[in-house]
Amino acid sequence: MRMAELSRESGVAVPTIKYYQREGLLPPGELTSPNQARYTATHVRRLRLVRALLEIGGLSVAGVREVLAAIDDPTTSTHDILGLAQHGLPMAKLEVSDDDRAWAMERIETAAAERGWQPHPESPVIEAIVGVLCAFRQVGHEWALDALDLYAEAADLVADADVTAVARLGRTEAIVEGAVVGTVLGDALLAALRRLAHAEASRKLFQA
Amino acid sequence: MRMAELSRESGVAVPTIKYYQREGLLPPGELTSPNQARYTATHVRRLRLVRALLEIGGLSVAGVREVLAAIDDPTTSTHDILGLAQHGLPMAKLEVSDDDRAWAMERIETAAAERGWQPHPESPVIEAIVGVLCAFRQVGHEWALDALDLYAEAADLVADADVTAVARLGRTEAIVEGAVVGTVLGDALLAALRRLAHAEASRKLFQA
Repeated sequence: MRMAELSRESGVAVPTIKYYQREGLLPPGELTSPNQARYTATHVRRLRLVRALLEIGGLSVAGVREVLAAIDDPTTSTHDILGLAQHGLPMAKLEVSDDDRAWAMERIETAAAERGWQPHPESPVIEAIVGVLCAFRQVGHEWALDALDLYAEAADLVADADVTAVARLGRTEAIVEGAVVGTVLGDALLAALRRLAHAEASRKLFQA
Repeated sequence: MRMAELSRESGVAVPTIKYYQREGLLPPGELTSPNQARYTATHVRRLRLVRALLEIGGLSVAGVREVLAAIDDPTTSTHDILGLAQHGLPMAKLEVSDDDRAWAMERIETAAAERGWQPHPESPVIEAIVGVLCAFRQVGHEWALDALDLYAEAADLVADADVTAVARLGRTEAIVEGAVVGTVLGDALLAALRRLAHAEASRKLFQA
């Protein structure tokens, strides 16, 4: 297909496709004449992935380049590629004191051990959890963390389903795209459902 | 206590306290001389609540005023006040077609019925869920919604614990503050834990 068709097929505007090419996010097409190139289904798939990483995942261009390089390297495991994509997702960070960090790490290790998780202590995800726990503490609402185990259980419940479903997508590119879309939109889904569940629980408790 | 002490006690700067007073978010102190007022523990608590609603919850000043008016009206139920506070929390919205909306509503109704939820069809939370479901569909990742029931179960799991814990805070003001802090920071906590659980599930599935 020509550039115009690639644009129609993928829903990505031509100037944007050209920008992706200049940034090394999309391989060139096969030249059929000095100023015309042919594109294939591979380009359509890559474009979808790039858009999902950039627009839904909010990854930087450099982050997307890293994920694509990992996908194109046959020696990288799917687990490592998923890690790269996940670590590129923006997460809130908070400056915390050493004392607060030690307190948070202890709580995280206890909760992780209970679920049989073996997290990397230097993972950016651990950093994000430390930040949230310290935020609860700083605003004087440490009581909320009594439910930390339940939160971890809920996270496990959906994460297992997510990863099993995503693995069925087959091709590594599709898996990575699915993981990013599922992670980011899944956050929004879980947050909205939790508000609905709050309303139900409040009705039962305060209006009984 | 004097204004300076109220500021120290609450951690809110004096000009900010004065701004809250002008906006009707904090009642005036008891005048002890023409230009000096005395404040009490009630003011400290109200200041904490106002800050939590504005800065953690992201409510508008008008939204905070509405929540405070509901708290100060003895005929309002705690359930209604929680509803007001929750509906003031910012949630993502998405323009959706009638066809998409009907499709999303059907899925939501099925999931809600399974959990025994009786949501208001016009609730802003339902609107947010419709938006997320349609976003999944629009990017071609409808498969992720096969786990909608599990997501609702996970939401229920944490929401019951949240509301039970928050109810123990006693005073309506503390309950509302706790609900807003717990809802917003709880979203961040659940999202971060879910990423950790994803990493564990991916390790088990792809590195076994």
